[in-house]
Amino acid sequence: MTLTLYGFGESGNAYKVALMLALTKTPWRLEFVPFFAGGARTPEFRAINEMGEVPVLVDGDVPLAQSGAILDYLAQKTGLFGGQGEADRREILRWTLWDNHKFSTQIGTTRFLLNFIPEDKRPVGAIPFLQGRLKVAYAVLEKHLEDRQWMVGDGPTTADLSCCSYLFYPEPWGFDLADYPAISRWLDRIRALPGWLHPYDLMPRAFPPAP
Amino acid sequence: MTLTLYGFGESGNAYKVALMLALTKTPWRLEFVPFFAGGARTPEFRAINEMGEVPVLVDGDVPLAQSGAILDYLAQKTGLFGGQGEADRREILRWTLWDNHKFSTQIGTTRFLLNFIPEDKRPVGAIPFLQGRLKVAYAVLEKHLEDRQWMVGDGPTTADLSCCSYLFYPEPWGFDLADYPAISRWLDRIRALPGWLHPYDLMPRAFPPAP
Repeated sequence: MTLTLYGFGESGNAYKVALMLALTKTPWRLEFVPFFAGGARTPEFRAINEMGEVPVLVDGDVPLAQSGAILDYLAQKTGLFGGQGEADRREILRWTLWDNHKFSTQIGTTRFLLNFIPEDKRPVGAIPFLQGRLKVAYAVLEKHLEDRQWMVGDGPTTADLSCCSYLFYPEPWGFDLADYPAISRWLDRIRALPGWLHPYDLMPRAFPPAP
Repeated sequence: MTLTLYGFGESGNAYKVALMLALTKTPWRLEFVPFFAGGARTPEFRAINEMGEVPVLVDGDVPLAQSGAILDYLAQKTGLFGGQGEADRREILRWTLWDNHKFSTQIGTTRFLLNFIPEDKRPVGAIPFLQGRLKVAYAVLEKHLEDRQWMVGDGPTTADLSCCSYLFYPEPWGFDLADYPAISRWLDRIRALPGWLHPYDLMPRAFPPAP
């Protein structure tokens, strides 16, 4: 059965799920959410996800939300990208939580402020503050990847898909891959996975919103 | 066997774990981390957790990190606060991720900026920005709790322990419980659980750092 993903191109969290669907060759269709025109805040959308966020994945009559929970669901459903055994499962959960807690959230916010709102509406102090916190996170990721190929265990897992997603976007947010050779090599490995696609080749962009 | 929790009083993420240990009557001891004196950034601590964060829980020779992963581990180990069945497990994961993504992270940061650094070092624009984002999150939580007793299913789970933790702290960060009656009633229910303790009764404070 074809799964339905609610998302849009700029959402790194939706991209985590779209990439998992692509890499596992799971049949899916996109339900485009016009985010920048308020598409995640309508009563209709909140009836699907009370959190008012994409991604949402609908499998049959079950709507799933939060990218980390959806990735866990798809790893179970497909038997792919879930690692080997309980120790891997715990490590995947640990890095997925770290990503949600310290990494993707702050990248997404900083990139949003720098690229998707008018310059005169940017909360000036917020951007360098978030960028400073992100430097700590980049260093943690770089160090973790210095002596290994993948985030957890011997092969790619949903922990890689969660942590990598925002790093494939072209909009600037104060991050230069040249400073992080281990992260760069890891992204090359992910890009080489059969079926990998760039976010804007998986989902159309929602910015700028249609007038 | 007695588990060892690395933490300190002000850490809401460590409190999530300490509260779970207290409520499940699991024997544990605290390894106090002098956070405000740099205790989470030493080479010794990074050897235990490369993420440079508390909480870390050590059970035997396995160190576990990220509060959400530790709560999942303890729910499995004790058979408590893990909900009923697979649907509950998914909902617990969903709300734990939401908490890490949208709620505890932003509360912890805002509270830190307003209470634990010198006033002249506060990144002024960051605080109202984070407070604005948090208002959206408070509304999501309030609405979720309006017609239910607990975050997931019919009883308390680790999703409650994850989402509630920062709300028990006394330091101001721009949140007034009086505005959120459903959240207030839910906190009262959690406070009434046998074995509940306030964060500062479970772990000593690390602020101000010893001179």
